[in-house]
Amino acid sequence: MINAFIMAGQSNMAGRGIIGDVPPIDNEGRIFMLRNGKWVPMSEPINPDRAIYVSDRTKIRSGISPAASFAKAWIDNNEGSVGLIPCADGGTAIDEWQPGTVLFDNLIQQTKLAMRSSEICGVLWHQGESDSKTEEAALAHAGKLTEVIYGIREELGLPDLPFIMGELAYKHKRWPYTEIVNKGMHALCGEVPHTCVASCEGYEIGPDTVHFTAEFYREFGVRYYGVYEKVK
Amino acid sequence: MINAFIMAGQSNMAGRGIIGDVPPIDNEGRIFMLRNGKWVPMSEPINPDRAIYVSDRTKIRSGISPAASFAKAWIDNNEGSVGLIPCADGGTAIDEWQPGTVLFDNLIQQTKLAMRSSEICGVLWHQGESDSKTEEAALAHAGKLTEVIYGIREELGLPDLPFIMGELAYKHKRWPYTEIVNKGMHALCGEVPHTCVASCEGYEIGPDTVHFTAEFYREFGVRYYGVYEKVK
Repeated sequence: MINAFIMAGQSNMAGRGIIGDVPPIDNEGRIFMLRNGKWVPMSEPINPDRAIYVSDRTKIRSGISPAASFAKAWIDNNEGSVGLIPCADGGTAIDEWQPGTVLFDNLIQQTKLAMRSSEICGVLWHQGESDSKTEEAALAHAGKLTEVIYGIREELGLPDLPFIMGELAYKHKRWPYTEIVNKGMHALCGEVPHTCVASCEGYEIGPDTVHFTAEFYREFGVRYYGVYEKVK
Repeated sequence: MINAFIMAGQSNMAGRGIIGDVPPIDNEGRIFMLRNGKWVPMSEPINPDRAIYVSDRTKIRSGISPAASFAKAWIDNNEGSVGLIPCADGGTAIDEWQPGTVLFDNLIQQTKLAMRSSEICGVLWHQGESDSKTEEAALAHAGKLTEVIYGIREELGLPDLPFIMGELAYKHKRWPYTEIVNKGMHALCGEVPHTCVASCEGYEIGPDTVHFTAEFYREFGVRYYGVYEKVK
């Protein structure tokens, strides 16, 4: 049985790291990704929400995400196989993830297809930049995210499903209020069981000037695994 | 409103042509593809059911399909925009597409998400190689395909939805009974309204020795559009 994790949120979970900037992760026959409701061997990009082949390194494209190195850490520490369900979508605000939206419903439907052949073990979430443009939106984020977490757990019938978040880049030139969103996520962890936040301390921004580097995505995924171990 | 077409079947609809072997198709701001239930500008590969980056030209990978040149022919002949819903899955037999299977249910769910923001105009189908290994399977194919067509139309509530098939490669060294499957599809067109078959006459096989060349996929998509015009 495959142990499956949902990828959700916006571009830094979808993954924008440039393929080729880091060594590929060998799936070792134990890391899979969902395609058309079925499991196929993992290769990157796992979450192709945007164009894939882009020769210009400064252009936005689907690429390296935290999910592959999370999965590698998982197989290095567990028996069995792991699967990734790609549902993240670039540029999306928390309002676009509320129950009943197309992104929420797509996540639930894809996950239910995956449940025919796997056990759902957690959600890998990175999102909030689109809610960091104004102080008002940033302050409202944690409450809206709580609705998403409970909504997913309810629809899947998994009330204790681990929900693993990642911090947003502090002091990002494009989003002035990420610090408020980060504080909100840390506070949320004290309120909502089985949630945790991976630190993005020491992050670096890649050649598109917006997203993390491929190297940092690799490190970030390992941190996601580290905090997951404590709440699973 | 986007005029949407479903991509379904196996690898020759998913697309295995090598990107770079043909000029890219400009989406002209009028060709879209479904990602997470939402429309994004089309770029290839449209249907990433398998690994994408493969340096070895002989390796199976997601790539050029008939869908992009079909869409280009559509915008050249119609006002408005066109969208592509990728649901094709390599190596799949007709039994894997019957109502209630994971591939069928994924197609219905993805299409229903797309229906929130588009009108469904047809199904682009290429499949049957996996049913051409034995004479018995090849002879049973048309009957089972008929079930798929009526099943999709019923689930979507679109009884007249055009269903556009493509011929399988004649005399393919790997699948000895493709000619029977092709005859079955042509016969089906006389029985099931709003169906048609695009010819694969003059096809060429690419460097993986199994699938069509990128150049032929481009030509094939134009032929799909030509026959669609007659049954829509």
